[in-house]
Amino acid sequence: MRRRDFLRTTAAAVSGVALRTGTGPVDWKDWRVNGARVNQHLTDLSRFGANPQGGVSRVAFTEADIGGRRFAMDLMRQSGLAVRIDAVGNIIGERAGSARNVLPILFGSHIDSVPEGGNYDGDVGSMSAIEVAQTLGERAYRNRHPLTVVIWCDEESGLTGSRGFIGDLPPAELTSPGRDGVPLADKIRRIGGDPDRLADARHAPGSIAAYVELHIEQGAMLDERGLEIGIVEGIVGIHHYDVTIHGFANHAGTTPMDRRRNAMLAAAELTLAVDRIVRSVPGRQVGTVGRLVVHPGAPNVIPGQVDLTVELRDLSTTTITSLWDRIHAEALDIVRKYDTTLDYVLQHTNDPALSDPHVRAVIADAVAGLNLTSQLMPSGAGHDAQDLARIGPMGMIFVPSVKGISHSPLELTRPEDVTNGANVLLQTILRLDQR
Amino acid sequence: MRRRDFLRTTAAAVSGVALRTGTGPVDWKDWRVNGARVNQHLTDLSRFGANPQGGVSRVAFTEADIGGRRFAMDLMRQSGLAVRIDAVGNIIGERAGSARNVLPILFGSHIDSVPEGGNYDGDVGSMSAIEVAQTLGERAYRNRHPLTVVIWCDEESGLTGSRGFIGDLPPAELTSPGRDGVPLADKIRRIGGDPDRLADARHAPGSIAAYVELHIEQGAMLDERGLEIGIVEGIVGIHHYDVTIHGFANHAGTTPMDRRRNAMLAAAELTLAVDRIVRSVPGRQVGTVGRLVVHPGAPNVIPGQVDLTVELRDLSTTTITSLWDRIHAEALDIVRKYDTTLDYVLQHTNDPALSDPHVRAVIADAVAGLNLTSQLMPSGAGHDAQDLARIGPMGMIFVPSVKGISHSPLELTRPEDVTNGANVLLQTILRLDQR
Repeated sequence: MRRRDFLRTTAAAVSGVALRTGTGPVDWKDWRVNGARVNQHLTDLSRFGANPQGGVSRVAFTEADIGGRRFAMDLMRQSGLAVRIDAVGNIIGERAGSARNVLPILFGSHIDSVPEGGNYDGDVGSMSAIEVAQTLGERAYRNRHPLTVVIWCDEESGLTGSRGFIGDLPPAELTSPGRDGVPLADKIRRIGGDPDRLADARHAPGSIAAYVELHIEQGAMLDERGLEIGIVEGIVGIHHYDVTIHGFANHAGTTPMDRRRNAMLAAAELTLAVDRIVRSVPGRQVGTVGRLVVHPGAPNVIPGQVDLTVELRDLSTTTITSLWDRIHAEALDIVRKYDTTLDYVLQHTNDPALSDPHVRAVIADAVAGLNLTSQLMPSGAGHDAQDLARIGPMGMIFVPSVKGISHSPLELTRPEDVTNGANVLLQTILRLDQR
Repeated sequence: MRRRDFLRTTAAAVSGVALRTGTGPVDWKDWRVNGARVNQHLTDLSRFGANPQGGVSRVAFTEADIGGRRFAMDLMRQSGLAVRIDAVGNIIGERAGSARNVLPILFGSHIDSVPEGGNYDGDVGSMSAIEVAQTLGERAYRNRHPLTVVIWCDEESGLTGSRGFIGDLPPAELTSPGRDGVPLADKIRRIGGDPDRLADARHAPGSIAAYVELHIEQGAMLDERGLEIGIVEGIVGIHHYDVTIHGFANHAGTTPMDRRRNAMLAAAELTLAVDRIVRSVPGRQVGTVGRLVVHPGAPNVIPGQVDLTVELRDLSTTTITSLWDRIHAEALDIVRKYDTTLDYVLQHTNDPALSDPHVRAVIADAVAGLNLTSQLMPSGAGHDAQDLARIGPMGMIFVPSVKGISHSPLELTRPEDVTNGANVLLQTILRLDQR
């Protein structure tokens, strides 16, 4: 079956209720979320920051974000969660556990968006996490672990909430003015956080039993292969290099071809070399020259300088650095050939964050129990889960993005896929709670 | 002799005076300009629009330009010329001729500059033309032809003055607001022109005996080869194509390498192909990708679109179009390879303007008479002379630009080279007048 039928999924949820109230022992493995409800909540959430042309602009800390957060908190309370806002501004909804001395299981995502983003990135995981809590409440499930639904604040502009949660938000970042001139501390206050007590939000390594995040893939692998679930191996590391090639700007009419020191020719060869070298080894690593600026940039002037970015991503830092070593060695040959020079700086590094093998196995078991098709895959995009991986076992569940489109009003994850994802999350949390 | 010695040149000018006042017949072939004076005038002119860091910003129609024009008109009057401003704003200085029914010989250049330009582009030819008139006046020379010194207005932003002079200034260009919001007509009024009577400035083909312009090379050919004079074969034609490559912008983390439609990879190959194809045939043609803009231009987004310029220059339009045909054919293969598409528009065309063979020969004779080293060469840059070539025989004289630097405060033509150029201009005008 290519896609689970939406009505059949809803029917399964109803039959789950029948099981609980039936004659045999409660079989929680048959429990299903209410697919219609979680998709309706996604639709309801999409009102906050809705763009005329579709999608949302629910940028963190804006009125649209604050409205969306209020909506989410209401849903969380209706699901029986004890809701609070932590010092960083994350929304925390807790369901107490029955066992003593066990660590909490966390699950959630974010509801802030990029400007002119879509209705699924973050929202699917957030609404599904609440739906899981609601379902457990309706089932009167007695969870052993404390279960904590988290809506992380400000994922899109730099994982602010999850970094605060693991104690990785430097004080300077709170006080220095952002691009809009407003310090982060002021914005955190605006949404009910308390930046003066940031230490209260901090969680040490070993303080959680697990963190599980459901998210849209934001790539086209699942959609193109007709698969229903992605089980995330890990979140790739990112190295971002700023490269500058120095040539000599000169008159494009009076400077003979053999007298040029054209920085753009060197940049063009380097751009092609990045692509070739990244493809030259097996694996799912990616490499991109995404920004390239030519100076002075006039039709009649030979480019004297080009600034470009080389971004490399992989689950293995070793792979990234060995790719860069090859790119850099070839770049030196290239610039020499064009009588140019180069310098570079490693602008930004994200370490890879591998998912926990046990959590991964539990997700795979949940997927199998739901009779869904799946694949193990890396996450090419960053997520709050990469921060949580630093304090405890992490797992991520992906659902398909139609055509891989994301950060766009055209972003789409089909309702049946949302329901599938929410069911995998439910069954994963139940399995983790009972191990 | 690598360089004529400045003092010796000055001495030669003095000996010229001796000849005129001596016992034999007047030998005008020994006449020389006053090298110290023309270089002093260059220095004096450089005060108008002087930049703190050197060079000038004497952009046409600005106060600096108006000041420079006033200075030039004073010099012209002191040289015995009858000075007026024509309807386009060109400064015209006339020295009446003795013969009837002969056409005027024109010579001159411009004194406007690019922003943060140098002290030689245009200025050398303008001050030298005035120096020639002054020398002829001091020699009490009886010219047969009317001799006309012209300082063209607004060369740098599009040969405005010379186009008006040949009747190639469309009315729309006068009335539509420029980049600064001010219509050209208002600016022409500001410098003493009369845009309502533009037809008065117009000169029909066949209305001049010749036009000769002395100019700095703006390239490094003369300087690198240690030559003193360039005799211009012609001014190259320019075809400027705006090319757009359409790919698909996507997440640089989540889109596998084999699923990309990366417009920048196609643009990089095309940039290299332009260079390779232009070099693949013998000749002095040049081709440049000078502007290249990547959209959206973020490190973590695969380029979805690249806009770039391809500029081709040669003395032969046939060469230019055949180069473009090869570039375009290869570009189609390149964009197909990357699953991208392209469109282009021929944004701008300048036809090549060949110098007149007879004027060229006269210049060569003058160079030989001065015992200077020289070379026949194309002008890769555009000049007012290309417009004048459309109404009569045109010739151009180049003097070396140190290291080929131009449109820069670092622009430099050595005083001895300025003197050489002015002497070649003097001897060329004398020969043309007497043929």
